[in-house]
Amino acid sequence: MILINGQPENRIPVSDRGLQYGDGLFETLAFRRGELEFLESHLSRLKLGCDRLNFHFTRPDSLKAELATLCAQTAEDSVIKVILTRGSGGRGYKAPTENEPIRIISSHIMPDYPQTNVQGVTVRMCDARLGLNPSLAGIKHLNRLEQVLARSEWDDPAISEGLMFDINDNLIEGTMSNLFIVKNGQLLTPPINQAGIAGIMRAEVLKLAEKNDIATQIKPLSKKDLLEADEVFLTNSIITIWPVTALTGTDSIWPHGPITRQLQTVLESAAR
Amino acid sequence: MILINGQPENRIPVSDRGLQYGDGLFETLAFRRGELEFLESHLSRLKLGCDRLNFHFTRPDSLKAELATLCAQTAEDSVIKVILTRGSGGRGYKAPTENEPIRIISSHIMPDYPQTNVQGVTVRMCDARLGLNPSLAGIKHLNRLEQVLARSEWDDPAISEGLMFDINDNLIEGTMSNLFIVKNGQLLTPPINQAGIAGIMRAEVLKLAEKNDIATQIKPLSKKDLLEADEVFLTNSIITIWPVTALTGTDSIWPHGPITRQLQTVLESAAR
Repeated sequence: MILINGQPENRIPVSDRGLQYGDGLFETLAFRRGELEFLESHLSRLKLGCDRLNFHFTRPDSLKAELATLCAQTAEDSVIKVILTRGSGGRGYKAPTENEPIRIISSHIMPDYPQTNVQGVTVRMCDARLGLNPSLAGIKHLNRLEQVLARSEWDDPAISEGLMFDINDNLIEGTMSNLFIVKNGQLLTPPINQAGIAGIMRAEVLKLAEKNDIATQIKPLSKKDLLEADEVFLTNSIITIWPVTALTGTDSIWPHGPITRQLQTVLESAAR
Repeated sequence: MILINGQPENRIPVSDRGLQYGDGLFETLAFRRGELEFLESHLSRLKLGCDRLNFHFTRPDSLKAELATLCAQTAEDSVIKVILTRGSGGRGYKAPTENEPIRIISSHIMPDYPQTNVQGVTVRMCDARLGLNPSLAGIKHLNRLEQVLARSEWDDPAISEGLMFDINDNLIEGTMSNLFIVKNGQLLTPPINQAGIAGIMRAEVLKLAEKNDIATQIKPLSKKDLLEADEVFLTNSIITIWPVTALTGTDSIWPHGPITRQLQTVLESAAR
């Protein structure tokens, strides 16, 4: 089911700047146990994206009401995607000044990831790099060709995710997830100020770690840091936390370790 | 008028990956004197983009036939835009393997730029930077937020274009054009291997310069190179060649110089 500005509709004008230029933002939310998980956090990130792209988004309340309508007609354990585009108009790249963004919300079947949260996943390192752009880093915008290119590098269903480096060889994130490592009891994740998406689940994990007296640090990570890590895990709103247990092309294996397990437990409690 | 895969239609499915991820390419052509200028060059760049993004584009002949249909119903002196998207399908960023790309072609009123080719234009330097990504540099893909951000920096209609630097302070191009400078009789333009779009008109100007014994060099350019240039001009398929005569925020002024004029003349002859 798709609602566009609250109306059942599954097509948009070719002139929409979301298509023409990727001039828009999105959010992917989990609908579980009758609620949209971390809704306010997703709306906050959307607002940050609107500020960054200079979208005049005056109707977050309409969006919330439309999400409630959609969820009322959606099976539990679904994925809800929100897209905001700048709509049509302007002249070439020059944006119209007063457009209310177009709200596109849709529900999707929750992907089936059996046992991955317990058994862990195998990942690979992608050749495709993340470009550097501070003005676009962090926000979840519609310019996602880097991720499409990275995700095209493998077909093997046994590989669950690909890790991406920036052009300076900093390890940043997965194609669809954020990355954490544990080293000597400390939780580490890369800064998202030059490339990457600052995930809602990433922020939640950092918050819960702090609350549970797990030392955390946001710092640049290299391939070497990854290979020498004690534990590795990935986060996003749908997968929550995936322990990483193997890295293709290397001898590296990691356990489903104690800090990963602790964070999974406290996250589960927080969500309930 | 808009044709999608040859049919009159002005909307696309929300599920189209062109909207979801900017997973597509475009071309902007001038329709003048009853013909699509540099059509084969545009189709070649489109093919290069398809190769880079792994699009299985098997119907360039259909596209050409559809362009002929569109042009037959379009006023001369129009802009024709071609968009190819990967269509719908796949799973998240993972692309479907066998999709024929969706062909979206549309005609638009040619912008009115009175006398700019003779009187020259005033430009500014943009704060928005181009990120670096060799795998996406050169091709004309749908991830254009950097250009949208740069173009949002000014409203003054007296400023015709904004110049963009990459994150390493290399001068790369305009928001919608390529940049050339002339220094000591030599024609210089930046390489487009880390950022930017390799324009059809840029290639044409380089070719015509060589044919007319104007020394050319593709080399990195800095702000200093710009300020010390003897002549400066911009190119794209619609504007052809715009002499740059002033740069806001600086004392720099440039003449509508002899090499710019020579290239305008030979380009005009080549197009006729």
